[in-house]
Amino acid sequence: MAKVKVTYFNVKALGEGIRMLLAYGGQEFEDIRVERDSWPELKPKTPFGQLPMLEIDGKQYAQSIAICRYLGRKYGLAGTTPEEDLIIDQNLDFFNDIRLKTVAANYESDEKVKADKLEDLKKNHFPVLFSKLDQMIKENNGFLAVGRLTWADFVFAGVYDALRMFTHLPDLDEKYPSFSKLRDTVRSLPKVKEFCDSAPKTDL
Amino acid sequence: MAKVKVTYFNVKALGEGIRMLLAYGGQEFEDIRVERDSWPELKPKTPFGQLPMLEIDGKQYAQSIAICRYLGRKYGLAGTTPEEDLIIDQNLDFFNDIRLKTVAANYESDEKVKADKLEDLKKNHFPVLFSKLDQMIKENNGFLAVGRLTWADFVFAGVYDALRMFTHLPDLDEKYPSFSKLRDTVRSLPKVKEFCDSAPKTDL
Repeated sequence: MAKVKVTYFNVKALGEGIRMLLAYGGQEFEDIRVERDSWPELKPKTPFGQLPMLEIDGKQYAQSIAICRYLGRKYGLAGTTPEEDLIIDQNLDFFNDIRLKTVAANYESDEKVKADKLEDLKKNHFPVLFSKLDQMIKENNGFLAVGRLTWADFVFAGVYDALRMFTHLPDLDEKYPSFSKLRDTVRSLPKVKEFCDSAPKTDL
Repeated sequence: MAKVKVTYFNVKALGEGIRMLLAYGGQEFEDIRVERDSWPELKPKTPFGQLPMLEIDGKQYAQSIAICRYLGRKYGLAGTTPEEDLIIDQNLDFFNDIRLKTVAANYESDEKVKADKLEDLKKNHFPVLFSKLDQMIKENNGFLAVGRLTWADFVFAGVYDALRMFTHLPDLDEKYPSFSKLRDTVRSLPKVKEFCDSAPKTDL
């Protein structure tokens, strides 16, 4: 069996989709969780100065969504036609746009700018975007695309807790129960559950 | 032949990769360019309230990179192994991260915030990121990944002029000649050139 390592921080977020896909595929892997203060030393040794990073027999890969697409294909979680793959990619990219907007607002260093951006998201963007996302999941039998489990759901399930925190919407789960339900669907898959149960517990 | 429409604004940017891939594939298409003032009316009729949009025999698809990946696969411009596809996706996502950071700074409504972000990019991010991108292209025979032409190069060639403008670096072409060279390589491909020559001329 290939020697596989996942390197990321000690959070779920962008690394968790990769970890859960490997668990789903029955692939043993070393789950390396880097402390923030050792990151500057590791950074120049990664492909693009970013984490997560996947290593397969010494070969390094970066970019979490690219990695999850690759693993999904490997473990039978991709589309069955090119059109299905397009729909999976399209729906996940829509979700990822929401994530990026939300994270960007939270990373503003100026508190006033941050507050204004979060307010703008809450007022003018979240209602439309989350309602669209909710509709998407409902139309797909509780999944993100093509009416069944795909690798995109692993990405969603990995980052959902971090996204929810960054929205600062305490009622997100209650308002759109389809979101946490999809996260739980993925995290309850037998081999994935086994991994999640034994992994370090983190808030995001 | 399928009836294909591309709907976008009258710029290259995120729509151009799709248009050039269709031209490369010999697929006739209707090149619809929406005026800014008719966008609010069209917006709710698109899959996610976003452009570009691709329509194939009436079916609508969104998300430019997802669409380009699909067309690239259709026209023989994808990887030949799952690992090659991972590298194409990974390298393009790295480039897209640079684009997103750059566009986000330009879209700041507060002039002071915008100026500070552009200054931070110029000082602390662009040198590292563009040098890495340059190295990536050089290591891949002038392409973005796997040493030969792929669909990712069409995405790059489509957005490069907009990216360059948004960097506010007048010497980007001179400093990293590999960038404009890659854009020109794609735009010079016989059927692509024919499309580009007959398309409306736009700065970005």
